[in-house]
Amino acid sequence: MGKKILIIGAVALGPKAACRARRLDPEAEILLIDRDDVISYGGCGIPYYVSGDVSDRKSLLTTVYHVVRDPGFFKAYKRVDVRTRTEALAIDRKAKTVRLKNLDTGAEESAAYDVLVLATGSNPFVPPVPGANLKGCLPIANMHHADAVKNAVQAGKVGTAVVVGAGAIGIEMCEALADLWGIETTLVEMVPQVLPQALGSDFARIVQHEIERAGVRVLLGDTVTEVLDDGNGNVRGVVTKNAGEIPCEMVIFAVGSRPNTTLAREAGLALGQFGGVLVDARMRTSDPNIYAGGDCVEIRHLVSGQNVHMPLGSMANRQGRVIGSNITGGGARFDGAVGSFVIRAFGLAAARAGLTEKQASAAGFDPVYAIIPTTDRAHFFPGAKMLYLKLIADRTSRRVLGIEAVCENGDAAKARVDAVAAILPFRPTADQISNLEVAYAPPYAQAMDVLNATANALENILDGRCKAMGVEEFLEGFHAGKYRVVDTRVARGAKACTEKYPGVWQSFPQEDIPGRLDELPKGGDVVMFCNSGVRSYDSQCFLMSEGIDLPHVQGGWLMLKSFEPGFQALDVPEGGEEGDEGH
Amino acid sequence: MGKKILIIGAVALGPKAACRARRLDPEAEILLIDRDDVISYGGCGIPYYVSGDVSDRKSLLTTVYHVVRDPGFFKAYKRVDVRTRTEALAIDRKAKTVRLKNLDTGAEESAAYDVLVLATGSNPFVPPVPGANLKGCLPIANMHHADAVKNAVQAGKVGTAVVVGAGAIGIEMCEALADLWGIETTLVEMVPQVLPQALGSDFARIVQHEIERAGVRVLLGDTVTEVLDDGNGNVRGVVTKNAGEIPCEMVIFAVGSRPNTTLAREAGLALGQFGGVLVDARMRTSDPNIYAGGDCVEIRHLVSGQNVHMPLGSMANRQGRVIGSNITGGGARFDGAVGSFVIRAFGLAAARAGLTEKQASAAGFDPVYAIIPTTDRAHFFPGAKMLYLKLIADRTSRRVLGIEAVCENGDAAKARVDAVAAILPFRPTADQISNLEVAYAPPYAQAMDVLNATANALENILDGRCKAMGVEEFLEGFHAGKYRVVDTRVARGAKACTEKYPGVWQSFPQEDIPGRLDELPKGGDVVMFCNSGVRSYDSQCFLMSEGIDLPHVQGGWLMLKSFEPGFQALDVPEGGEEGDEGH
Repeated sequence: MGKKILIIGAVALGPKAACRARRLDPEAEILLIDRDDVISYGGCGIPYYVSGDVSDRKSLLTTVYHVVRDPGFFKAYKRVDVRTRTEALAIDRKAKTVRLKNLDTGAEESAAYDVLVLATGSNPFVPPVPGANLKGCLPIANMHHADAVKNAVQAGKVGTAVVVGAGAIGIEMCEALADLWGIETTLVEMVPQVLPQALGSDFARIVQHEIERAGVRVLLGDTVTEVLDDGNGNVRGVVTKNAGEIPCEMVIFAVGSRPNTTLAREAGLALGQFGGVLVDARMRTSDPNIYAGGDCVEIRHLVSGQNVHMPLGSMANRQGRVIGSNITGGGARFDGAVGSFVIRAFGLAAARAGLTEKQASAAGFDPVYAIIPTTDRAHFFPGAKMLYLKLIADRTSRRVLGIEAVCENGDAAKARVDAVAAILPFRPTADQISNLEVAYAPPYAQAMDVLNATANALENILDGRCKAMGVEEFLEGFHAGKYRVVDTRVARGAKACTEKYPGVWQSFPQEDIPGRLDELPKGGDVVMFCNSGVRSYDSQCFLMSEGIDLPHVQGGWLMLKSFEPGFQALDVPEGGEEGDEGH
Repeated sequence: MGKKILIIGAVALGPKAACRARRLDPEAEILLIDRDDVISYGGCGIPYYVSGDVSDRKSLLTTVYHVVRDPGFFKAYKRVDVRTRTEALAIDRKAKTVRLKNLDTGAEESAAYDVLVLATGSNPFVPPVPGANLKGCLPIANMHHADAVKNAVQAGKVGTAVVVGAGAIGIEMCEALADLWGIETTLVEMVPQVLPQALGSDFARIVQHEIERAGVRVLLGDTVTEVLDDGNGNVRGVVTKNAGEIPCEMVIFAVGSRPNTTLAREAGLALGQFGGVLVDARMRTSDPNIYAGGDCVEIRHLVSGQNVHMPLGSMANRQGRVIGSNITGGGARFDGAVGSFVIRAFGLAAARAGLTEKQASAAGFDPVYAIIPTTDRAHFFPGAKMLYLKLIADRTSRRVLGIEAVCENGDAAKARVDAVAAILPFRPTADQISNLEVAYAPPYAQAMDVLNATANALENILDGRCKAMGVEEFLEGFHAGKYRVVDTRVARGAKACTEKYPGVWQSFPQEDIPGRLDELPKGGDVVMFCNSGVRSYDSQCFLMSEGIDLPHVQGGWLMLKSFEPGFQALDVPEGGEEGDEGH
């Protein structure tokens, strides 16, 4: 008799663990159950199915080679038994059995296991507001939700929609609804920025403008307090705390998910602070005969050292293989994660790994950061896109804590983030990223890649050689009348600003500064400015040697205009205003 | 008086070191000299300038912001003195002076230094064949060569060309000449594969087919023995060892470069086995007052531990900054490189880091490899491209030694290579790459990314669970009548092959194998085959449990048809033939 392996949950981790276990142990009796009738689907593809990017629903349910991953597939190809519409009611850890219920017949039975795997996933969180159960209100957590949304929009029943939550799924659903279907969409987010878990507020603003440019109304720092009934049990609108009533026919809740751990909790397994099952680096729970992984567990964050809940299909797949190895006698490890993330938001992509500044502060670090906006490939190469890169480090240890990237070219953003993510577990310093070896050819990178250049800038900040101010701090102070600006661009680059803010915004082209030291504005609150930060940093170095200590605005005009497109109406001619040769 | 810093060479490393030194030391007297009148240019952009991708010659000579990097620029913006058309004749290390010659006036003088930086670059190697000095024969090493080629093709003087050397520059020049200008181009390479320093012969073949598809004739394992004179000192053709006479109006030599170390050698500085200047991790030569970097030095390969000559603009820039820091009292390090590389070859990109199998064997490792061809993004996402990934590891230590990637989407290939390159210095095992955290969203990756999947396959090979055969070994044996094939695709997938090779190539759809064990061909030299390697590996696992031990072909049909497009005329329908759930 082979080892009895029972796996609860058949979306991502469950099938992966089952198939890996089968390959390693031909004798094992493997049973995979799921309460749904749709299994092993590409849940992350749902927004693209709704949008029409993915036109064929079936493609989310099939292999790369178009074979539907149904129980017959698993039986024929993987020699794994699958029972769908089967719910696990309770675990008897002592007897090593699970009570199963057939949801179609109502029949119950007890299944014995030698090893049990919990792949119970997470439940979408629906905020407890009045009306949240009306018809037309739904989360996006499985194919049934996807079908409901797609059927409604395809039937032309949805002219306006409200999406609650500006995380990845919320933004992807905005794109799906607004971009292809032309649905008037409002995005409501409680935190005063989009992607609050993924990006700092400055980069988040760039993404926000992209969402708004596409016609989506974005309400930040706001919450839905009520969903309104049309009298027939259908949604007719929402009320938000700040914006009042917003008519709509559909409300999508995308405010995150909670680990689905009812079974685990009732069986007395150890749970963590986020309610996820606690597992060791072998993905084993507090019961040595039970493993767990995917959306239902907490994992270690390899930068902060804290536990986190990281529900991602890629995590589930990698962990599933580790579990499949270990339940058949292997010694595979999953030590944790650094939080790599990428999203397409209309025409932009945003990617990150590690911690944002806020997360770094909360974890007890003293974060500083550098931002460089420059092209994703050689500046002379056609099709070059602006890539905004941010590196965050701990001031004391110089350890790099996080990276964020925003670019039209998503693969280019991802390339930089993935490279840094790979070494984050090795605790690299900023200096190591300065020499990080990225492949170079003009169609794909600059000779001094944006990644190296940003690390160079970060080193300079850590060394106290560069006194840097973020664009948010600058704009807040500038609009409050606090700062005077020394603009080191060539005169015609600075012209629009100097004309609009006479006496406050002054042109000091970099090359003229040595001869015009006496003219520099005196006193505090003078800020250096240029197009991207290179000229102003160069000027800062010179001025420091003259005993003059002025901060410069990180990312200069390129960050400012991306952060606040309405800063001034005149369009500043780009080009002709910078020296480079770097940081 | 400030420290006297003299830098010889003003293309990439020299200017970088000079500008960094200036920012760190405002007092230093910095002199940068070059024998050319064109300095600080993007040499790697030359092929794209010739092709017309980069239409404006000036853009190779300017900053991101279109400022020409001439001596005036360096003086005004960087406070660095530059003298062009100035050659360094000799170093007097005892007196700490360099003898300089003005190439326009012939005047000589002696310049004193406290610190000297050698950024003398490399010289293109021109093979010593008769006629190599004819008009129309040239290497591609500086803007003057670029202008000569571009002027000739623009004037319509070149109908046919021969490019010697199938490294990066050779291939890029083929693209420049053939693709935009429609010049009938022949590529001659001594080694029997393209990109011999960068790729294994299997992936090189995929790139070769792409070059040939674009109309370039590729002669491998061949050499030019003579360049023919038209009687007026112009090229009229070449003679190669195997192909005989090839008429042409232009011959481009792209057979590599040698460190330009005449000055260093004559000054008695230590040189290495490739003739490059030897430097420590601070980029200091055997003379503590002399630093060197860029194309004129040898650096440590961080995987093999051996010294290598790695002439790349990106290396030069990063090293330049390290030197700029160290000559002004800093302690920056450049520990070496893992040989990251990327090239665009017509519609494909090829990238790699670390060692190829051949290089690994030569360095004393026992290399094994895994290959996975799959899509660069979720298979259901529109625009997904096939990405061929190879990971190479040492059999004993499981240490990953190298990665190669080929894909239409160059940024996607680069993303995988850069991630692995980042951790190669940390000596990762295959198991670590299995869990390497790459950012995931359907537009940019699969949930189980190709990188993780390839590492999974590599683990299986290292564990002895997967017996893998390369496509080259398979095809060589198959064409010699050695192998019988068990094709585990669905019958219609295998049909074209089974019909063409009756009795030799047999259809055993994966799901049927358990019931048809008796029918399997007996005896040695039976090989399992499928579309990408997943089905055949799965079947292999099953058969091993039955005591039947058959190898499978890595990458299956996808590798085979890319490696040998003419393998059989019938086009096999793709799709419908594979299970996945991975390795």
